[in-house]
Parts: sequence; structure tokens; C-alpha cells
Amino acid sequence: MEKKIITISREFGSGGRTIGHQVAEALNIPFYDKELVDQVALESGFAPNFVEEHGEHAPSSSLFAYAFAHHGAPGVMNGMSTADFLWNVQCNVILQLAEKGPCVIVGRNADYILKDRPDCLHAFIHANTEARAERIVRLYGNSEKSPQARLAEKDKRRKMNYQHYTGQTWGNAKNYDICLDTSVLGIETCTEILVKLMRGE
Amino acid sequence: MEKKIITISREFGSGGRTIGHQVAEALNIPFYDKELVDQVALESGFAPNFVEEHGEHAPSSSLFAYAFAHHGAPGVMNGMSTADFLWNVQCNVILQLAEKGPCVIVGRNADYILKDRPDCLHAFIHANTEARAERIVRLYGNSEKSPQARLAEKDKRRKMNYQHYTGQTWGNAKNYDICLDTSVLGIETCTEILVKLMRGE
Repeated sequence: MEKKIITISREFGSGGRTIGHQVAEALNIPFYDKELVDQVALESGFAPNFVEEHGEHAPSSSLFAYAFAHHGAPGVMNGMSTADFLWNVQCNVILQLAEKGPCVIVGRNADYILKDRPDCLHAFIHANTEARAERIVRLYGNSEKSPQARLAEKDKRRKMNYQHYTGQTWGNAKNYDICLDTSVLGIETCTEILVKLMRGE
Repeated sequence: MEKKIITISREFGSGGRTIGHQVAEALNIPFYDKELVDQVALESGFAPNFVEEHGEHAPSSSLFAYAFAHHGAPGVMNGMSTADFLWNVQCNVILQLAEKGPCVIVGRNADYILKDRPDCLHAFIHANTEARAERIVRLYGNSEKSPQARLAEKDKRRKMNYQHYTGQTWGNAKNYDICLDTSVLGIETCTEILVKLMRGE
């Protein structure tokens, strides 16, 4: 079946977001990442930077603290925890975006949320630690923590969030139609492969 | 770096062996699968069909029984269990084949055995259960067990063997440079992608 939508799940620092952007440009279709976050934020009433921080992370006590401070309730909205509420809003936004037409969606467990749509191609982008560490320092600069520690922390949080909300294992090849290692294949080649698949070439 | 060797790990019934054959033909390089098994058998003194049966399976009591019956020792050769002896022979054969020049190697945990060679591309081929069940019935016919049960059994044994000898998780995308789902992408497209990568196109 012809694919109209591509979801790109990615390890932090793998270049997955860049690939998503390049694929969207090549196919001339919308790219959803921060834009998606903003929309989720608007619908949920959360601040955009709060959604960006917590949208791919497992439920934590800070979510409850935030909800208490900003919503005047102890982490519960419509009977749901803040984290579950946020997850529900994200699901709805992603399902709506997919209904609107062809697009690229990066992250936010969109592979799982759209798993029942046969017009979606699901890609997972990863890379070895060395390449990812080099990339995050180049793009985001150094911080107090070592790049390896930053990667490990982000990996752990994405993994926990994915496991929690999908019941599946993060990075298992079987969750995706195609998985690519940018540290071996290069970002440009990965983009080309995905563009060709989307074009049905 | 230019890739000369491609290892193809695959789920039973995914079409990975067919893809390996097609890639080898397109690149005009040797294809090792049963040929490899035969060579292992020759070196180890095991019968070819015994190696084929046990070469990708976790150690089991039947190995010890076989060794006892055919080698006159209770499952021990050079101080190793039969399973470990077989694994060592397979490792050596695969390392030697890789030294000989460009080739395609299907299965036998070759991805792990050749992980330190930068001239190897490591692919994992999978497919959904429905497509695999249809394929094994079409290729191998029906048996007393349901195709789903045959797949589950083979998956479990490959997974255990891989875990036992590599310490890694079978099917984890990070063990491979590229993972492809033939039930979504089609066998021909998967072959084309791998041939192009090998040609550096």
C-alpha cells in the first residue's frame, strides 16, 4: 500500500530529526515536531516548554507538582494523572494530524499511536554512542554533564516512556518497518532511502 | 567505509535467505548458508544435518546425547561442551570466510562474530507473523504443528542461542546497521536497498 505518512522514532543525537526534516522537504509535506508540541500545549493548557520536556518522558513526581501548581488540582484532570492526560492529548493531536494528510511526525511515540494506519511508514533512527556524543556537543554545546551521561539519561527516559505507554520495548526492530544506523550509513543516505520508499520508487 | 561483506540475520519465514541469495547474485559474490553449514560440519566432524539443526539453537541435552553417541565422550571436546565446541568452529569458519573476500552470510550470528570488521554491513530481516506463516506453508508445506507454533518455536530457539552466545538481545535494532520488514516493504525492495548500499550508490 502506498505510504502517505512517515513516523520517525529516534535516539537522541542520531540525526533522526534532521532526516525527518529532509524527508519532509523532499516530499514537500508538513513536518511535525515542535509544531506538534505547540499544538499539544495549546489543547492541554500546558506551557510549550513543559510539554516538550515531559512529552516523551515517563510519569514523574514533577508532573504532579506542575499540575498542582498550575491547575490547582493534585495531578488529576478528568480523573487522569497529568502524565496520562498529556499522553491522551498527544494521541489525539497525532491522530488528527494524520487525518489531515501526508506528513512527517518525529518522536512522541507516533509509531505506536498510528500503528493501525496502513498508509504509515514507521522508521527508527539510531547511531552508536560515539557519533551521537559528537553530534550533541556540536549541535547543543557542552554542559556540566558528559555527553555520554546526557545520552544515557535521555535514552533511559524515552525507553521508560515508550514502555509505559505502548507496552513494547524501545528499539525493538519489529516495532518498525525500517531501522537505520546513521553512524554507519550516513544521514544523507538514510534520507534518500526513506524518500524513495515514500515515493514508492 | 566501503562494505564488502553483508551479514543477514533473519526471522524464520521472513524471506531473509531469499534476499541474501538475490543480493549475492546481484553483486556476483559468494553466498554462504548451507555451504557454510557443510564446511562447519566438515571441520567439526558433525553430520551436516545435525549442524543445520543445532547451529542456531541454544545448548540442549540432545547435543550432549549426540556427542556421547558419536564421539564417545559425554558432550565434552577439548574441555568444551558440544554446543560451545560447535559455536567455536562456526566462529572460526565465518572469520575465515570473511578473510577470503566479499560475500553474503546468512544467519549463524555472523553479525556478532564479524562485529569488529568495519567492511561488513549487518542487516536484520523480519516480517509480521501472518506473512511469515503464509510463507513457510507455501515453501515448506503444512505439518502437524500450526505455522504459528512452528514460528514461535523457531523464534524462541534463535533468540535463546543469540542471547547465550552474544549476550545481546535478538532483534534489537542497535545490533544491526539496517533492519527491514518484508511484509511491509516487499522482498524485492529490500534486496534493492541492500544492493545499493553495498554498491555505495
